[in-house]
This record gives sequence, structure tokens and C-alpha cells, in this order.
Amino acid sequence: MRHYPRPLLLALCSCFSFALVLPAQEKSAPKPRARDLGVPFDGTPGPLNAITDVWGVTVGHTTLISGEGKLQVGKGPVRTGVTAVLPRGKDSMNKPVFAGWWSLNGNGEMTGTTWVEESGFLEGPVMITNTHSVGVVRDAVIQWRVNHGQPDPTGYWWSLPVVAETWDGWLNDINGFHVKPEDAFHAIDSAHTGAVEEGNIGGGTGMICNEFKGGIGTSSRKIETKLRAFTVGVLVQCNYGSRKHLRIAGVPVGREIPEDPAYASASFNELDRGSIIVVVARDAPLLAHQLKRLARRVSLGLGRDGSISGNGSGDIFIAFSTANPGAAGSDDVVNLQMLPNDQIEPVFAATVQATEEAVINAMVAAETMTGIENHKVIALPHEKLREVLKKYNRFAP
Amino acid sequence: MRHYPRPLLLALCSCFSFALVLPAQEKSAPKPRARDLGVPFDGTPGPLNAITDVWGVTVGHTTLISGEGKLQVGKGPVRTGVTAVLPRGKDSMNKPVFAGWWSLNGNGEMTGTTWVEESGFLEGPVMITNTHSVGVVRDAVIQWRVNHGQPDPTGYWWSLPVVAETWDGWLNDINGFHVKPEDAFHAIDSAHTGAVEEGNIGGGTGMICNEFKGGIGTSSRKIETKLRAFTVGVLVQCNYGSRKHLRIAGVPVGREIPEDPAYASASFNELDRGSIIVVVARDAPLLAHQLKRLARRVSLGLGRDGSISGNGSGDIFIAFSTANPGAAGSDDVVNLQMLPNDQIEPVFAATVQATEEAVINAMVAAETMTGIENHKVIALPHEKLREVLKKYNRFAP
Amino acid sequence: MRHYPRPLLLALCSCFSFALVLPAQEKSAPKPRARDLGVPFDGTPGPLNAITDVWGVTVGHTTLISGEGKLQVGKGPVRTGVTAVLPRGKDSMNKPVFAGWWSLNGNGEMTGTTWVEESGFLEGPVMITNTHSVGVVRDAVIQWRVNHGQPDPTGYWWSLPVVAETWDGWLNDINGFHVKPEDAFHAIDSAHTGAVEEGNIGGGTGMICNEFKGGIGTSSRKIETKLRAFTVGVLVQCNYGSRKHLRIAGVPVGREIPEDPAYASASFNELDRGSIIVVVARDAPLLAHQLKRLARRVSLGLGRDGSISGNGSGDIFIAFSTANPGAAGSDDVVNLQMLPNDQIEPVFAATVQATEEAVINAMVAAETMTGIENHKVIALPHEKLREVLKKYNRFAP
Amino acid sequence: MRHYPRPLLLALCSCFSFALVLPAQEKSAPKPRARDLGVPFDGTPGPLNAITDVWGVTVGHTTLISGEGKLQVGKGPVRTGVTAVLPRGKDSMNKPVFAGWWSLNGNGEMTGTTWVEESGFLEGPVMITNTHSVGVVRDAVIQWRVNHGQPDPTGYWWSLPVVAETWDGWLNDINGFHVKPEDAFHAIDSAHTGAVEEGNIGGGTGMICNEFKGGIGTSSRKIETKLRAFTVGVLVQCNYGSRKHLRIAGVPVGREIPEDPAYASASFNELDRGSIIVVVARDAPLLAHQLKRLARRVSLGLGRDGSISGNGSGDIFIAFSTANPGAAGSDDVVNLQMLPNDQIEPVFAATVQATEEAVINAMVAAETMTGIENHKVIALPHEKLREVLKKYNRFAP
Repeated sequence: MRHYPRPLLLALCSCFSFALVLPAQEKSAPKPRARDLGVPFDGTPGPLNAITDVWGVTVGHTTLISGEGKLQVGKGPVRTGVTAVLPRGKDSMNKPVFAGWWSLNGNGEMTGTTWVEESGFLEGPVMITNTHSVGVVRDAVIQWRVNHGQPDPTGYWWSLPVVAETWDGWLNDINGFHVKPEDAFHAIDSAHTGAVEEGNIGGGTGMICNEFKGGIGTSSRKIETKLRAFTVGVLVQCNYGSRKHLRIAGVPVGREIPEDPAYASASFNELDRGSIIVVVARDAPLLAHQLKRLARRVSLGLGRDGSISGNGSGDIFIAFSTANPGAAGSDDVVNLQMLPNDQIEPVFAATVQATEEAVINAMVAAETMTGIENHKVIALPHEKLREVLKKYNRFAP
Repeated sequence: MRHYPRPLLLALCSCFSFALVLPAQEKSAPKPRARDLGVPFDGTPGPLNAITDVWGVTVGHTTLISGEGKLQVGKGPVRTGVTAVLPRGKDSMNKPVFAGWWSLNGNGEMTGTTWVEESGFLEGPVMITNTHSVGVVRDAVIQWRVNHGQPDPTGYWWSLPVVAETWDGWLNDINGFHVKPEDAFHAIDSAHTGAVEEGNIGGGTGMICNEFKGGIGTSSRKIETKLRAFTVGVLVQCNYGSRKHLRIAGVPVGREIPEDPAYASASFNELDRGSIIVVVARDAPLLAHQLKRLARRVSLGLGRDGSISGNGSGDIFIAFSTANPGAAGSDDVVNLQMLPNDQIEPVFAATVQATEEAVINAMVAAETMTGIENHKVIALPHEKLREVLKKYNRFAP
Repeated sequence: MRHYPRPLLLALCSCFSFALVLPAQEKSAPKPRARDLGVPFDGTPGPLNAITDVWGVTVGHTTLISGEGKLQVGKGPVRTGVTAVLPRGKDSMNKPVFAGWWSLNGNGEMTGTTWVEESGFLEGPVMITNTHSVGVVRDAVIQWRVNHGQPDPTGYWWSLPVVAETWDGWLNDINGFHVKPEDAFHAIDSAHTGAVEEGNIGGGTGMICNEFKGGIGTSSRKIETKLRAFTVGVLVQCNYGSRKHLRIAGVPVGREIPEDPAYASASFNELDRGSIIVVVARDAPLLAHQLKRLARRVSLGLGRDGSISGNGSGDIFIAFSTANPGAAGSDDVVNLQMLPNDQIEPVFAATVQATEEAVINAMVAAETMTGIENHKVIALPHEKLREVLKKYNRFAP
Repeated sequence: MRHYPRPLLLALCSCFSFALVLPAQEKSAPKPRARDLGVPFDGTPGPLNAITDVWGVTVGHTTLISGEGKLQVGKGPVRTGVTAVLPRGKDSMNKPVFAGWWSLNGNGEMTGTTWVEESGFLEGPVMITNTHSVGVVRDAVIQWRVNHGQPDPTGYWWSLPVVAETWDGWLNDINGFHVKPEDAFHAIDSAHTGAVEEGNIGGGTGMICNEFKGGIGTSSRKIETKLRAFTVGVLVQCNYGSRKHLRIAGVPVGREIPEDPAYASASFNELDRGSIIVVVARDAPLLAHQLKRLARRVSLGLGRDGSISGNGSGDIFIAFSTANPGAAGSDDVVNLQMLPNDQIEPVFAATVQATEEAVINAMVAAETMTGIENHKVIALPHEKLREVLKKYNRFAP
């Protein structure tokens, strides 16, 4: 990806999403994903192995990359962005989805969760950006709604947007506050169905995961209950973990590849930095309290990848269901559908499995990046990963 | 109420419920309730002004009163009992209700709440007894189910009964463990629709409220949303509070009637002892997360009565909805109804109002009782209450 | 207060805090507070009857008032602001306080609470503003810290500011996003000990409470445990409630003064709008889990004032303790003090009492305001309040 | 273990603990533990690799085994028991420990948790038994306290014991209610320091884990923060999981050993049955809110073992700290120590690691058992496990 100077970036905004789509178009050399490298995972993914396998979900990104070398606060280098997940695409503003959230380790921010917990609904998109830009993105979602939407039924605007973050200050001029309202607008406006860009993209641009380069990752699972078929999708902004704890498909990959850890020169080197935001979508008709159950399962997927959820890690998860489009209500009681608890187990398993895979997908897709102060964070070396899998008889080509 | 020696009580069990019904039959001199004394409350009660105004809800009591004078642990005096609230009457075991619970101050026990929170359902009755008898009542509910019910769909029994308590050790030989499984069976078996006995009855037998005699109280409200009519019912086992904080209809009744406080000779006299368990029923179609919202509103009703919820108070509330009888599920998705959040406000108001009144009803119905060590706890004096209301221009005959 | 056009306001920022101090200087005609009007409350207030009675706590406001008449989004009229509460004054950024939060009804935002819950600490100030300006204030707190503070011990910045809101869109051009980073800086920089301005000030400028004009209110209590004396202080940004539910000192004031309700012409007139943010400070050495207990008690104070916490109300509370200044830690274990649970009851009572009074203080101090579209919201009429108190024999001059 | 007819068992109670200690005495052929079979784990265990490595913690068991063949409810066969964990040994009743709990999936019971959450303390032991015996054990703990302890400082008894359960109805006559108060007394009275019995013992007697025989397991870790050394210990009653999900040291052992799954003939065969109770002890000075953080980490350990925490699983965890023996308080403020959050990470890692190992230890120690209706549950075959570890290059002799 080229490094745009910021004014150019804004000028290019309309073509930007085109640029992002390009890699998917030149099918000749698609980026490999974890499965392509022979990593074995449980369960059956959907056609895209992405959160967008859940019908109606769209994802958009704004990526901000500019400058190199020494840090000049307010100037750069810039390595950050914004990612938007719209549960019902453009209808997300008017048709809330049932939702539940949960925090494994709350050293992070996800605004709007108090209302998600209270109301049982997510109203609008889930936005993900860097720690110091949560505010600007939050107010921008309200402004986007003011600009585009209809007044709410009371005739008056109000809004409690859901905006989450992880910290990219090892690569990005985070104190420069480079994310602007327009960047949030662009992420929402460019959200699309189809394949989801992974790695150094959107909110994930400057992220680090298990001391390799991290970022955005996604995965999905097709499941069957006794009488129905459903899809679960997961998207992560992956910025957590220590190399030594990393397991891939149960294999101690982190110890087998100890070279070039990120943060090596940092004063906080001993600690588990970073965070992970996980968004879980499903089309099964689950109510708010059931979605909270789902959100808790995310931690089991992270456990499989070796996470200990360190003190500095903001590990916050939100789950929603695209079923029940009319649930938000009206003047009368509304009719709903619910998957009974006794049928929910496949959804639990799928959530664990898709989380486990989305994290690895993020690391596989991310590419080596150099940011402020020439901090360099290496990508997970694909060939070496294959070797380690073979060593432990877990290579599944 | 006469004091039965225990063996006699058990022998009388079959006639016991008859005895309890007696007062309602001899209509010549019904016990006055708070409204009858001129206490003004907001909102419109149902025909019985009781939790049983919610269609299907039944309430049963077992009252254990025997012995007088000096405490002999294991012998008495006994002043305790068990109260059972069955959300759908006899169908309660097979047809769970959506439910939510909340603890204002958790110095108490309500078993089964972890599963209520997780599943969104209350399966079976809500039982209330004394602090040291929660266990025996809990296992007895399982045994009752083993004896009466059908196996669950898996073919195997399991059960996580909801049993709550408040402490009656000022009047009752609580360390004598006088409640037996049969007492729990009787409370369930004798549960009935119609008027609910209040005061020194069932689990409320030995309870103390705001340093007056307390016990069981109940109230209800009829409400209307835009297009529907619903009923909210509340039942309390009332054992909390300090005299000085007590307000009735906003009037500082506790300070106006400082005489003969309970616990005067106790070493813990300065503290807010006791607890309150509140059960909220409604027929409006509310989901689990909405019922948790309702449970929190109970605290606002207690606030109106002057509660500060002291450290020693176990103030734990559970709310359920009798709508959606088929919600428990099956092999397929189930159809539900939900009252939208935008229509929920009258239910909130009714919960606050009915809680405020149920507490006062408990105190008005309770009668002066003498228990272990000749501890005497006086009833709220009715005539004096009328005078105080008049003094503050709040008498509403 | 005069209506500044916005550019002038910014120019005046340095003198602004002087202007705000003026009323306190012209002692000849101080604004009456609830007690001055004869409203009786329980407990003993501190010398200022303000949150600043807790040693070290400072409060600052930025008030934005400009324009009149028809709403032109982006231009005005403007009726909003920002309030900052600093637990340890200027030391707040470097010396966290133990804290706990709780939401009675989560239709609102308080950022940073996930970390408060996880860490047990509040790091930095509590900021309160309007609903659509939470984001700008949040990022501004981080920027203020970047500008003023030292790096955190890890050498890298991070921050999860606590910023809360209530909705002022009935009087204020809320979609104009008039709050700027400088307004947040000014609220922090101007925070001071001593008397706290109440009513139409800071974040409370455009707020409405029980359909009277609301805003900022405060109160305090002196308490004694067995061997110690402590102070509890409360500050509210008061924007909740329906006239019909309002009780003052137990008296149904709302029904006695039904005239000129706010929102009368609004399409959402039937609903309980608005919200209340409550900040509770104390100097007693309470740990995080104890402060969460305190936060829950706020609801009992609101219950006394008649609140039902409607669906649209964001009733979110945070409590902190200024004791244990070294708690944030270091490389070794730290020494702490704790008030045992058995001694905590006076703190509970004080929290309930000070909350009850702070809300009434906010309404008593607030003055009639006209905002967008010439919406006029009347102040609680002082003389009429005195009459109603007398009618119910609750006038305490 | 021999099958005692019940009357004999009670007669043998005094010698029973001697019998249990026997295996540890005949050191000639100690039972192997997971490490002895070559399973690799992260971190450094304490000398006993048991929860009792945390100084002061004692563990006692009562094991009830009698009868064979066809189920006769009330007669047997009996395969159940009670396990007691005493945080401070015999001092546990008088010296509470700071504690926190958390539920990953609340299809289970742990009584007393509402007070743990509210007070921040665990007062007394943690008891674990079968689902239908929670009540009898709960009341028995109160009775034990009545029999043995001093009155609480108020002069009056009260108690909210912590009692947890998992379901053993596949092997045990659970509806026969075979656990009696004496069995709870014995578990408390026989609690001892030193090695902890694992497998088919105490509450774990009839348990099933990942469709192998389960039961009690334990493990510990020694850790170092910057300036201090601490110990973390974990004890599990392990009854959860499906064979297909089981991972050991990251290896898909469950799929490699699919033979003879438990429940094969059950109507609920497709579901994830059972539950796991986890008790985490540490000597590091952690406060209540920090211990809740610890409890959440247990789920990451279960994630490593492959758990998806199915709908039917009651996965409930409690963590306590034996530091701060004087924390319970008195008339004055108390002095405490706290490990700062910034130093907590090694405790997190140790909790994850010790949980991961304790589960495997339970399965390795448990022996094949035949219970009601001749249901047979096989032990994890040790030799086969070694082979699978070798196949995946994870054998660590």
C-alpha cells in the first residue's frame, strides 16, 4: 500500500474504496489466508469465510498511511484508520439488531455499551479505530446520522454510537489525532458485502498481534441446529498478546518463531500490550441475553490461540443477530422468533472456532510495517509457519 | 394465630390451608390494608391488589409457629415458614417464564439466579423462607419435581431452584432448622389464586420491617400502553430497614412513631438489619433483559419508603412475565411476542408504585409477635398511622 | 447570564472563570438553595453543602450560551456546556482514585466505565456535557493530558477518559456540535475548590428536570463511623423525570405545580425524557467494590424524589474515594486502608440523602430559560414551592 | 476404592480420612499425573502441584460409593460425595478472604455468590457436591458453624455458605439424595494440607469430563512479580465437555481417542453436558475486584483444553486470596496490602496455566467407573495418550 500524504488521501476518498478492491480483482495472486497455509481449524466456513457471509452485514474501511521516520506529533508518521461493520448495511440506522456485549479485560473502550446492555439492541454500526480517536469517530456517527437519516420516531435526534478501539501508538502518531470525521463517514459509506479486506487495513492498520504485525481478520462458520441452518461470522481488530503465548492450531508457534518481537525496545516490553475487539454476527434468531452468552464464548476462541488477556489488554466483544428485523418496535407488541437455548450449542461452537481462525487470519494477512521512529513490526513468516506446523504434524494443506 | 406444636401442625397440614382461607371467608371483619387506613398511593390497583391479579400466578404458604419463652436451640420457640410463588400455577414446572433478577444489596441468598441470568428463564416456583433453611427448601423443590413432574426432555432430572431468604433469628429459633421438606411441599401444593394472605404468614412469619413487625405484603397495578392493557403484581417478604428512615406516602412516619423499636436490646442495634425479597410478576410480554430492567426499578419503590439498603440487608429482586408460554422451546425456533422498550414506561411506573405499596401492606397486615427470649416486636399501630398522615395532610380515606 | 456570541466567548475564556466567580463575590444577594426555601432533608451537610466539601475535589464549568429564536443547525441557539469534576484537583491525572460505577437505566453514555470496572480506578476527571459532544470532550481530555502531563510509566500515552452526558436538544442546537476541545480544556483548567455553581451552568446549561429547568446541583453530608469522621459529596447533572412523579421531601410537589410543563409541544410528550448523571465523592477509604455499592445507593435517593427511571432516561452514577493516594501502585505491593463493610452504613445513608438534596438544589438554582424555537422551560417557582411545603406541613424554615 | 454400604461408611467416618491418605503413603506406586505421562504445560508448578501449595489452604473429601447395577431411587447405586476447600484451614470461618467469582456459563449453582460479589469476601469454605445435594450441604455448613464457631460480632448467627455442584446423574442415584449433613461435616473436618487426592474422590466421585471419567483435579504455579514471589493454586471438579472438542497441550486428543464415549446411550447424547467448578487460590494480596479478574481468566485455560462451554454446562469459578488476614475489619479502618494492576500479569498467566493442567490432572487421575444401570465411563487411557502426544511431537517425558 502506498503512503498517501493526508490531503491527497481526502481528495482520493471517492476512488479509495476502488483501490482497496483492487487486490480482490487481480485474482492472479490473491493473498493467502491461514487455511491456505495449511493451518487446520474445526468447523465448516461459509463461502467467503468472512463476517459478510452473514446476509446483510457490510464492512468498510478507511486507511490512513503517510510519512516515515521520526515522530513529529501532529504530522506523523501516520499508520491508522477506521473500520465500520454495519449489521444490516444501510438499513442499520433504522433497524436495530438484538445485541449483547462482554468484556474479558476492560482495558479499552467500547462506547454505547451501556445502552446495548440496557435496551438489548445495537442501533447503527460498530466502528473500530485507534484509542485516541474514539471520540471523533463517535460524534461523527451521530453527525452521519444527522446528515443522512430520518429523525427518530420522537422527532428528535439522539444517539449512543458503538465505537471501539485498540492502541496503535507503537507505529502511529496516535497523539497527532489524525482521524477526522470524514474518515468515519468514508468507512460507513464504503461498507460493502463480499470479501473483507484483512491485515493492515482500516482500524487495523497500525496494530500488532502476539508481537507480529496484526490488524483486521475475519472468519465464518456454517452451522445446523436440529431443523435449521445458520451462519456465524466474526471480525477482529487484533492487537493483543505476547509471542511466547501464541498457539496456532494448538501448536506453540510463538516459541518456535521467537525472532524480531515487536516492542523489543520499549520500556514496557515485559507486558502484554494491546487489545482485541471482536464483532460477532449471526443470522440465527437470538435474543439479547443469548447474544451476551455468545460474546462470552469469544474468550474460549482466544484461549485456543494462547491468550492470557494481560492487564493492558482491552478485550471487548460484541455480538448481534440480523434476524428479527422488526424487533425495534412500534406502538404495539411485536412478533419475534427465538432459537431456544437447547438448540444453541452449535452457535457456541461456531463462535469459538471462527474467533480462533479470525485472529490467525489477521496475522497471516498483515504485512511487515515500519512506522514512527522507524519501529518495524514483522509479519508472521508464512513459510516458517508451514514448517512449524509440519514439525508438530498439524500441517493440513 | 394459634401456636401449634409441630407434630400437630404436620397432622393439620391438610386442613391448614382451609384455616388460612378462613379470614377471607368471614368477610365481617377483614383485615384492613394500607389503603383502608387512608394511605395514598399512585396508580390503579387490580381487583385484589395482589400479585395474583396477574393471571395464572398462585401463592402458597406454610406457617410454623410453636413454643414460647426461652430459646432452646432445636426446640424453639419457632416463628418461621415458607412461601411459594408459582408463576403459572401447576404448569410452572413445565413451562418456564422469562425472568430477570437484580440485587440492590447482596447480603442475602437467592439460589438459582446464575441460571436465571444465563438462560433468561425462571423454571419452577420462587420460594422464600428463613436464611438457615434455604438449603432444605432448595433440595425439596427438586424432590417435589421428582415426585410430581415428568422428566425433562433429555430424560434426566436436573434442577436449579430459586429459593430466597430473609433472617428471622430475632423471633425464631433459626439455628434449630425447623423447616422440613414437607413444609416446602405444602407451600407449593397449597398455592392458590385469589387473595394473598399478608403479614405473619409463610416465609414472612418471623420478619421485622423498619423495626415494626413485617412479613408478606403484596400489591398490583393495572396499566395501559398505547394499545394494550396489562397487570403488574408485586409480592414482598419484608424484613429490612430502620425506623428512623421509614417514610409512608412521603411522610416521615418512622420518626413520628419512634416507640418500641425492634432489636432495642440487640448488640447490633445501630445497624440496618434484615432484608427484603421482592417478586414482580406481569403479564406483559417482556423478554429476559427487559425483566432485569424491571427488577432494578424495585429499588426506586424502596427509595420512596425511605430505604437506604444497609450493609446487612439482602435486597434481592426477581421479575418474571407470564406471557409467551411456549418460549421454553423445542426442536425448532419459537415464536414470541415482545413489548417494545418504547412502550415499557407504564410497566416501570407500576413496578415502583406496587413495590412502594406492598411494603406498607406487609407492615399494616403484620400483627405484634413475641418470639424467642420473649423478644416482642410491635405491629405498626394503625390509629397512630392515621394521625400522622393527617398531620401531614396525606390522609386519603 | 449574558448570551455570548461564540467567538467572543473563546476570547473571554481567560476572564470567564472570573465572571463565574462573581456571583459568589457579590454576597449581598446569594441565590437561595433548597434548604433556604424551607425544604427539610435528613443528615448534616458539610460547610459548603457541596461535593467540594470532600477535600481535594475541584469543579470547573464552561458555559456556552448564544443566539435566540429559530433553530439553524450549526449556528444556534446554543445552550450547552461542559462540567469537570477532578477528584484530586490537578493531581487527578497522576494519582488515580478507587472508583465504582453503576447504571440504573443505561439510556446514556459514560465512556471509560469498562476500565473503571476492570481496574477499580478512575484515572483523571469526570466530564459531563451534552449527548452529541461526548466524543469531542473525550478526545480533548486525552489531548489535555498530552499537553500537560507526564508520560505514563510505560513511556507511552494511553487514556480512557470518563465522559458522561445528558440530552439538551430541547433548548440547544445539539446537532450543531458547538462544544469544542477548548471548552473541555477550560472546564478542567478552571476547576476550583470552594462553592460550586449550580443550575444553568456547565454541562447543565440546557438541562430540564421533572419538566422544570434543571442543570447542575450538589450537596454533601458529614458522617461518623464508630471511630472516624468522613464527608460524602454529590454532584448531579439533572435532566430526568416527569412532573407528575416529582416529590420533594416526600411531598407530591409535581402534582401541586402542574403548570407550564417542559416538552408540552413535543411529539414525545408522554415519555420520561432526559437523564441524570451523578458523581459521588468521599474521603472515606473505600475500595472499588465498595464504591460500586455506593453508586447503587444513588437510586434510592432518586426514588425519594419520585423517579421511575423511564426508558429514555440515562441514569448513570460514578463514585470515587479520595483516600489511598498511593494506590495506583508501583513495582511493589502497596499499602492501603479500607473502611470495613460493617462500618459502611453511615456512608450509604449519606449518599442517599445527598443525592436526594442535590437534585432539588439543581432545580432550585436553575433559572427559566428560552432556547431553540423559543422553547421556554420555567424554573421551579420558589414561592409556590414554599406554599406546597406548608400545605403538607413540611416547611422547615 | 471399595464400595461401602452406607451405614458402614458412616461408621467408618473417623478412619475414612486415614484410608484416603493411604495412597500417598504407599509411595511405591503413586498414581501418575499428567506431567508424568509426558504432557507439556507452561509455567513452573509448586512442590505439590496442588492448590495446597498456597499456604494455609486445606482440602477435604467425603466419598460415597455403594451398590451396583439397576437404579433404585433412594437405594443406589451411589457414586457421589462432597469436597471442601478451606482458604485458611480452620481459621476460614473467622477470617474471611477477599474473593471474586465469575460464571462463564451459568447452567449451575454456586450459592453465596451474591454476597461474595457484594462484600468482596468469601466467609468460610467452598463446598462442591452433586447438583441435587447443594441444599443439604449449604445448611450443613451453617450447622457446622453453629456447632463449632463463635457467634459473629453482632451476637447473632447468619451465614451465606458457598456451595457449588456438578451433575453426576449418569453414574449416581442423584434423585436418591444420598448426601447427608454428616458428609459435609466430614469433608470440612478432614480437610488437610499436603497432597490433594484427585479423580474419583469427594464431589468429583461420579463426574465425567470430555466423555472420559472426570472428577477432582488440581495444579499450581509459582510466579514472580518485579519484587515478590507468589503461588497460584487451582482445584477443579471437572464434569464438562465433549470428546470431539478435547485438546491436551494443543493436541486434538479427543478426536484421536474417540472410543467408548460416555453418555453414548443417552437421549441427550448430542449435547455438551456437565459442568466445571473451578476454585482458584493465591497468596498474592489481591482485592475483590482483582480476584474477579482472575476468575475470568479461568475461561482461557478451559479454552486451551478445547471447551466451548455448552448450553448445559455450569462453568462457575471462584478466586480468593489468602493475604490480608485482618481484612474483615473491626471498629476502625483496616490496613491492607494490594498487588498493583501493573504487576498482576504473572498471576493471570499462572491462572490460565494451572487451570489448563488441573483439568487434565483430573482426567488422568480418574479411574474407569461403573454406576447406575451399569453405565460405564472409561478413564482416559494413559498409554494411548502418550502415543497421541508422540504423534504430534508434544511428548515431554
